[in-house]
Amino acid sequence: MRGFAAGILERLDALAAISAEPGAITRVYLSPEQARANALVMGWMREAGMSARLDAAGNVVGRVEGAEPGGPALVIGSHLDTVRDAGRYDGPLGVVTGIACVAAWLRADGRPPFAVEVVGFGDEEGTRFQSTLIGSRAFAGTFDPALLALRDADGISLGAALTAFGLDPARIGQAARAAKDVLGYLELHIEQGPMLEQAGLPVGAVTAISGATRLAVTLTGEAGHAGTVAMAGRRDALAGAAECVLAVEARCRGEADLVGTVGGIAVHPGVVNVIPGEARFTLDLRAPDDACRRAALADIEAAWSAIVRRRGLDLAVRRTHEAQAVPCDPALTALVEAAIAQEGYRALRLPSGAGHDGMAVAAIAPIAMIFVRCRGGISHSPAEFAGPPDIEAGARVMLGTLRGLARRIRA
Amino acid sequence: MRGFAAGILERLDALAAISAEPGAITRVYLSPEQARANALVMGWMREAGMSARLDAAGNVVGRVEGAEPGGPALVIGSHLDTVRDAGRYDGPLGVVTGIACVAAWLRADGRPPFAVEVVGFGDEEGTRFQSTLIGSRAFAGTFDPALLALRDADGISLGAALTAFGLDPARIGQAARAAKDVLGYLELHIEQGPMLEQAGLPVGAVTAISGATRLAVTLTGEAGHAGTVAMAGRRDALAGAAECVLAVEARCRGEADLVGTVGGIAVHPGVVNVIPGEARFTLDLRAPDDACRRAALADIEAAWSAIVRRRGLDLAVRRTHEAQAVPCDPALTALVEAAIAQEGYRALRLPSGAGHDGMAVAAIAPIAMIFVRCRGGISHSPAEFAGPPDIEAGARVMLGTLRGLARRIRA
Repeated sequence: MRGFAAGILERLDALAAISAEPGAITRVYLSPEQARANALVMGWMREAGMSARLDAAGNVVGRVEGAEPGGPALVIGSHLDTVRDAGRYDGPLGVVTGIACVAAWLRADGRPPFAVEVVGFGDEEGTRFQSTLIGSRAFAGTFDPALLALRDADGISLGAALTAFGLDPARIGQAARAAKDVLGYLELHIEQGPMLEQAGLPVGAVTAISGATRLAVTLTGEAGHAGTVAMAGRRDALAGAAECVLAVEARCRGEADLVGTVGGIAVHPGVVNVIPGEARFTLDLRAPDDACRRAALADIEAAWSAIVRRRGLDLAVRRTHEAQAVPCDPALTALVEAAIAQEGYRALRLPSGAGHDGMAVAAIAPIAMIFVRCRGGISHSPAEFAGPPDIEAGARVMLGTLRGLARRIRA
Repeated sequence: MRGFAAGILERLDALAAISAEPGAITRVYLSPEQARANALVMGWMREAGMSARLDAAGNVVGRVEGAEPGGPALVIGSHLDTVRDAGRYDGPLGVVTGIACVAAWLRADGRPPFAVEVVGFGDEEGTRFQSTLIGSRAFAGTFDPALLALRDADGISLGAALTAFGLDPARIGQAARAAKDVLGYLELHIEQGPMLEQAGLPVGAVTAISGATRLAVTLTGEAGHAGTVAMAGRRDALAGAAECVLAVEARCRGEADLVGTVGGIAVHPGVVNVIPGEARFTLDLRAPDDACRRAALADIEAAWSAIVRRRGLDLAVRRTHEAQAVPCDPALTALVEAAIAQEGYRALRLPSGAGHDGMAVAAIAPIAMIFVRCRGGISHSPAEFAGPPDIEAGARVMLGTLRGLARRIRA
């Protein structure tokens, strides 16, 4: 059997060429570019021996029947949309690898014991409507129809965009799949982080998609003249915020798999010669274990309270995002680990700090994820890169996982 | 003798009514509003028994001769320009009080033994051309003609603005006064800080106008995904900046009259889910003693170097402003202190953290400054306020200082 990587890379190049921006990769949900990408992907699906269709949410769905026609399917998925000025791996790699594995499996092993589907989700990134996972939520039946009123930067609603794409917003619910029809969900994705690179491994098995809490924090002190207000009399909002930033770092450093980030900060009035009267900052806190995240959040908020009390500042905290952790299925993940071992690698278990379509699909099926090493952990950037040997390893692990599942089901 | 405060407040109200913005006080250098304010002030000067003229830089100069006509003058000054949306005390209080004191002195004591001038400087704030002290620098002969090319927000150069005001930019040097013609310089100003309020005193004697260093600092680390990069692998520019901010605070808290402020901060990319790869912040460091400021700066830069070394960040520091401290003249300040004691108050000595026209005039004459308490230390704001009893005390101290100088010169 010839290797996977060359064929996969050829297809990633073909998808990368479909972009709204010359010289960059930008392919957003329900755009003309996405229609072209979908057509291309459906052609590859059919070439691989699958039926292919567009579902009611604009996801492309390829399917090959198993022993029992119409029976529950193992779904392999990832997304075809991108951020603006994206890399070529984030999303498409999982879809293209899925098609390549199904093709290889059918060729080598014949009809599988269970149905297999490959899904290219229409929206994971949320680039166009600022709401992520629209495609996979529709697939899982958890799409909230209120989101049809969301508007993109040009004022076009999600409902109108579906219509323009040739779909019926009133029927988006028809994209939903029943739990009984999905045997499991497998997603291969670049890691978008540095852990595999640090471990010197091409692939890894994901334990959970981390839960996340995001906060918008405002500290209020008192503005004053930088030259005339003595240090002792100050209520400097930025000095307080600086302590808060370091409290986040200190708490998260103490615990593996817990990460906390202050990504944004702004002060008012924000000029060189005025003591900041107000500081606003964000917190992004993630952990694969919800109890760990909640405990860290409580400790951080307690530390902040002590800081503002001591400094005479006011603290206002607003929660802007909250997502529970989504654990991967132990049995399906064990098959991934076995396939990694089969390829001769140590099966590193790692959490996914980033969100993925699997988060949505977990509502109706056990999920597992294969991570592929990417250079420098860089993603959402033209510099995103996964080496051909790592892509090869990822595809072999995916195929090994399919075969492992087939053995388990036959047994 | 009737009190000073009522008459001074009436005149401050009249000046406050001359503004480019209805409902706010905005009066910038060489504007039509400043022409109206100058005319009003020159009228008051003549009413007080002084000659009055506009100098080549747009400063108004009132003068009463002493025993020897054309002899060296004690100059009382402050500025008539304002920041945008200013208060009514910052600047005008010193000019109006000067005129009131000269009027009272002439009325009560007759011709003084030395000439007295009252100057309303045309530019101290730098609101229009982003360069401060243009009026007082021209007066002191330290105006740099290269500044004539500065442009305001409408693209009008300082040179063109002087012409439009009826002045000749080529002759701005004629505003310069010789050191031999200036006996000394006395400025009364609101404190713009909280120290008199904290001490429960209406007035104080200024020891020095603090020197200042301003820096623009850039910390460079590595941006990364907030969910996927473990804490141990981060080079977070904001976490480093937070330590730098606290290092400034810690160093300055340890020393009286030293103040350090990080007034501005910005991070890149500055979004909730990305580790900041770059943080830029400002430092404003002031002290009435230059050696103290230099030592603090060296300590702060050493602390920053240690922080960035430990965190694997890059540090770039650019000096954006540097001004030496301007000490007040001990003999003239002793007269201010004696006048304060004469009024029955403890003579609190305090530095001026803010800049004043006296900084420029110090190039040609010994200077002294009287501070008047202002509520909450608030300035550069419509909320700026000095109580009538404190204004009264300030005027009496100014008159007492004039009489003290007359006694010293006669003796």
